[in-house]
Amino acid sequence: MNIHVLSLFPDMFTGVFGSSILKKAQEKGAVTLAVSDIRDYSDNKHKQVDDYPYGGGAGMVLKPEPMFHAVETLTQHMNKKPRIILMCPQGDRFTQKKAEELAKEEELIFLCGHYEGYDERIREYLVTDEISIGDFVLTGGELPAMTVIDAVVRLLPGVLGQEDSHIHDSFSTGLLEHPHYTRPADFRGMTVPDVLVSGNHGKIEKWREEESLRRTFERRPDLFDHLELSASQKAFLETLKKEKE
Amino acid sequence: MNIHVLSLFPDMFTGVFGSSILKKAQEKGAVTLAVSDIRDYSDNKHKQVDDYPYGGGAGMVLKPEPMFHAVETLTQHMNKKPRIILMCPQGDRFTQKKAEELAKEEELIFLCGHYEGYDERIREYLVTDEISIGDFVLTGGELPAMTVIDAVVRLLPGVLGQEDSHIHDSFSTGLLEHPHYTRPADFRGMTVPDVLVSGNHGKIEKWREEESLRRTFERRPDLFDHLELSASQKAFLETLKKEKE
Repeated sequence: MNIHVLSLFPDMFTGVFGSSILKKAQEKGAVTLAVSDIRDYSDNKHKQVDDYPYGGGAGMVLKPEPMFHAVETLTQHMNKKPRIILMCPQGDRFTQKKAEELAKEEELIFLCGHYEGYDERIREYLVTDEISIGDFVLTGGELPAMTVIDAVVRLLPGVLGQEDSHIHDSFSTGLLEHPHYTRPADFRGMTVPDVLVSGNHGKIEKWREEESLRRTFERRPDLFDHLELSASQKAFLETLKKEKE
Repeated sequence: MNIHVLSLFPDMFTGVFGSSILKKAQEKGAVTLAVSDIRDYSDNKHKQVDDYPYGGGAGMVLKPEPMFHAVETLTQHMNKKPRIILMCPQGDRFTQKKAEELAKEEELIFLCGHYEGYDERIREYLVTDEISIGDFVLTGGELPAMTVIDAVVRLLPGVLGQEDSHIHDSFSTGLLEHPHYTRPADFRGMTVPDVLVSGNHGKIEKWREEESLRRTFERRPDLFDHLELSASQKAFLETLKKEKE
């Protein structure tokens, strides 16, 4: 997969793209990550990329030409138009399902604005997807783009080794994870549950499943709406509901 | 405000903390941003911070001692225990309201795990808040921590200059933003709405308010549940509903 990011602050990406799984994924050849400065696509001698809004008001608006020019330059040798993703608080909420969908693409282009509005023609005629990571106000689209890229790249074949992919990730099983414990068994009087040091694997599996159900019941009961539970899971959930009453 | 981050990948933060508003906020003295490597708080000569899970299974679990040791070192001269925030997919969903709440604190400590589980005793006895930025699987808590920090720091007094704070941010007015346009008025035949170049400020304000309502109606009707609309806003919304039928 090739990922291109267009940003006014390309330096923001250095640390994240150069560490951990994103670094490994590039070294393994699973992905190329490139960041371009939108200013480089301005045809203005002052590299101006924004201008005053029509209709007045404070603040500046990102002009259409540099964004169109940048995307056209990046895509000129591509056989088909790639997904062009605008990071924007008005977009569709990002989810694991969306990450899985994007992981099937060969090319992705991310457009990041930065404390400004976008000219509406970018939204209307250039982008294919608008994605938001949540209902909060950030300075720009850079952190949301990095977040989406991390979630997508770790799904690409060969990126996670066996040692990384073990975790029963929340949201991939549909339930929240059960608690984890490691040594020491007694840390300042805070101890590990007896069952985990019992050596009884059947009991351990049962405890983990029940704690996973309990945590989901307590914190995210909405997740049950999309799950098919087994008879024993349903029975345990009923117990939890009765305990709460 | 002083913000401390504990991470296994401190280099990930360099680009983000060194750019844009977060850089300016530090230069203005509104915030200090520090990142420490959790490994530096291991008492193990190999700087080991994780170990096998009790009860078996693949994968490693972050040990309690280095996290407790790190937090105790950071807080030893503080008068009161600060908010200690675990970035974790099981946590409370981050919202603008949470950002406003955190912006009132003097000290914040962020704990970031990285593709591993945490020993449950960290969650149970050390942290005060668990925050998630959404239902998707990331490699670590670093990007979520940066996201929360960006949202919080831009709310601190003196951080956003007048030139930055103008935007009628989505979520701060409760409605999604209206479209923005800037020059050229005609870009390859894609034109700016006539009203915006009319010079009639009353009409422009009305258009913007209606487009804001329209966009919210189309994309995020759930936002209306928490809003008190004026009589004219309600009337326009009724028109939109009828158009849709």
